[in-house]
Amino acid sequence: MYKINDNYQKLPGSYLFSTIGKKVNAYSAANPDKKIIRLGIGDVTQPLAPAIIEAMHKAVDEMGCAETFHGYAPDLGYDFLRNAIVKNDYQARGCDITADEIFVSDGAKSDSGNIQEIFAENNRIAVCDPVYPVYVDSNVMAGRTGTYDPKTEMWSDVIYMPCTMENNFVPEFPKETPDMIYLCLPNNPTGTTITRAQLQSWVDYANKVGAVIIYDAAYEAYISEENVAHSIYECEGARTCAIELKSFSKNAGFTGVRLGYTVVPKELKCGGVSLNAMWARRHGTKFNGAPYIVQRAGEAVYSDAGKAQLKEQVAYYMKNAATIKDGLAKAGYTVFGGVNAPYIWLKTPDQMTSWEFFDYLLENANIVGTPGSGFGPSGEGYFRLTAFGSYENTLAALERIQKL
Amino acid sequence: MYKINDNYQKLPGSYLFSTIGKKVNAYSAANPDKKIIRLGIGDVTQPLAPAIIEAMHKAVDEMGCAETFHGYAPDLGYDFLRNAIVKNDYQARGCDITADEIFVSDGAKSDSGNIQEIFAENNRIAVCDPVYPVYVDSNVMAGRTGTYDPKTEMWSDVIYMPCTMENNFVPEFPKETPDMIYLCLPNNPTGTTITRAQLQSWVDYANKVGAVIIYDAAYEAYISEENVAHSIYECEGARTCAIELKSFSKNAGFTGVRLGYTVVPKELKCGGVSLNAMWARRHGTKFNGAPYIVQRAGEAVYSDAGKAQLKEQVAYYMKNAATIKDGLAKAGYTVFGGVNAPYIWLKTPDQMTSWEFFDYLLENANIVGTPGSGFGPSGEGYFRLTAFGSYENTLAALERIQKL
Repeated sequence: MYKINDNYQKLPGSYLFSTIGKKVNAYSAANPDKKIIRLGIGDVTQPLAPAIIEAMHKAVDEMGCAETFHGYAPDLGYDFLRNAIVKNDYQARGCDITADEIFVSDGAKSDSGNIQEIFAENNRIAVCDPVYPVYVDSNVMAGRTGTYDPKTEMWSDVIYMPCTMENNFVPEFPKETPDMIYLCLPNNPTGTTITRAQLQSWVDYANKVGAVIIYDAAYEAYISEENVAHSIYECEGARTCAIELKSFSKNAGFTGVRLGYTVVPKELKCGGVSLNAMWARRHGTKFNGAPYIVQRAGEAVYSDAGKAQLKEQVAYYMKNAATIKDGLAKAGYTVFGGVNAPYIWLKTPDQMTSWEFFDYLLENANIVGTPGSGFGPSGEGYFRLTAFGSYENTLAALERIQKL
Repeated sequence: MYKINDNYQKLPGSYLFSTIGKKVNAYSAANPDKKIIRLGIGDVTQPLAPAIIEAMHKAVDEMGCAETFHGYAPDLGYDFLRNAIVKNDYQARGCDITADEIFVSDGAKSDSGNIQEIFAENNRIAVCDPVYPVYVDSNVMAGRTGTYDPKTEMWSDVIYMPCTMENNFVPEFPKETPDMIYLCLPNNPTGTTITRAQLQSWVDYANKVGAVIIYDAAYEAYISEENVAHSIYECEGARTCAIELKSFSKNAGFTGVRLGYTVVPKELKCGGVSLNAMWARRHGTKFNGAPYIVQRAGEAVYSDAGKAQLKEQVAYYMKNAATIKDGLAKAGYTVFGGVNAPYIWLKTPDQMTSWEFFDYLLENANIVGTPGSGFGPSGEGYFRLTAFGSYENTLAALERIQKL
């Protein structure tokens, strides 16, 4: 009789967004006249930029002609896209990354879930707390996290690095030595980040203790401060300790288009084994390339027109972020984030729990946000609002909050 | 110090297509005047059907307008596609499958590599030999296959089910009891298949011994004989023992578009745990949906115009298959497949090994095929030609072979 992967049974239910959905639906049903504004889920709302739409139409036409039809893509991505990535995201910033270190994928969620596969089962992971849940959950499925304590909401074998207002949301080197360190910077959900110098100290630490950093730079396009690194490879020594994950979802609105990439430098080796070669083998065995049309869309992100249009799109969302942040501050809230990321992280007032504040905001201002506790135990007492709504809705939401 | 997944080190090099590439390049360089015809890789050559192109253009336009923009897709696929799949691929054939048993993905290669994740590490797998290499390789990576013997090219813990002309390419129940049985029918590379009654006996066997069947139906659209099942769910009892993988690559030419789906029936349970729920959790954690545009393309496959156009496309390739099969038979070869699948499997003449015949065909007829030994030890002495070229090239290739 076949047996299942028992690690799946250890996963607690994934209730965050389903609970939010149920609460919102119940409230709507009871109050059909109320107009609810959603600043909860991290999904974008602006349409794809014209340069991207144009590139996709062209690629669709190519797929309709025998002469220009494209079948299987190269496993690791088309050269036109890998070269554009290298030139714009790395060489332009002085980072020494080459095209054969870029692995194009169907998105950073897949990559951040799959990357742990190339590591041993008994590696110890460290994560910021709060953080994007995929890092921990994918390691639970692989049997790398020990047992779950429902009381503390923590796994016995995971090293948590609390990021709270007490430490300015800067993770500290853990007491126990980790093997794999997940860093998402700028951070989801807190919208905060660390300086280039602080990131350098993490690179130095990883090289010293022999850890690998899995660096999720999904929100890099929203960085506005000069002293924040856009890539971990801006730090000296990162090529021997860091894998970088990049998304097109937030910088180009590709949440429904699906494109991302992972950088695995050739110097990244464990006992002489190249992690670049391992990830290439993983890609070649369990993945068959991102769609041609989508890779052409990705290429358009780096065209002159695309860059100009996306700069405007990012500015649009960051105007929302500033609107939320300033409005909340004026209303007396303690707020973080929103400067280098499209997320605002606020301290719940009056000692409310994250869920109490969720209910309060839904019932009194008809606004949906995300309870911080859904991202990890240290998120308790915090709340996330996203800048991905329309400007009109964002303004209206803040007016409501200021009237509370 | 972090450690890697040592199972990757056990994988022998993946040399098949790279060796083919090197040999072809070397021959071309030495013989620049020769026109090489490629009937090797299983990639399609016909452009996407007009109905699909139209649907994609429409979807691209939707992505360019705020009112019709689509962000994150539902993890498991849009209802419009899941409903079209259920109606056309299952209900129309009398199979009792519902939309919440369909999991839309970025292709059957990803699914066939990933599906093993939800099973225990100590399950024993059985595979047809020869077969699509992803089944074994993904299980090697998971540590499920024991040790590799380079002499026999076999893994100690894999149960091989030889499919050769001696048993009419019909796999026999293995002596040792497997936990997970991979069946790819119609088969890649042999192009052969089994009858519905024979498939029913596999379903009965799996239910009896408590095995799960992972049924890869990627070539289903090429079935021409009445007594061959298009889906394993045509067999009684399959809902309690079988997962079905489906691809849009070969029936609709989506090799560069990337779309597939997996069916996990709700009755499929192990000790009360629903595999449908497990796969949903896997999808929700490590995948973020197929692109909206691609799912709309998939929907168009099931439109009246799409169905008519794709019927023609499949007929085009099957005319090639018949041309190859008849031509080879006339030239004195022993040939198989090509009736329910786009692959022709031939016995190499004069006791040549698969690679000897590869060289012979390349040098004497300037035709590239695939050595059978690349698909497993029992593929030695066989050779694969694909029907996915153009009709003109296929005809020309057969003329050359007949002149040998």
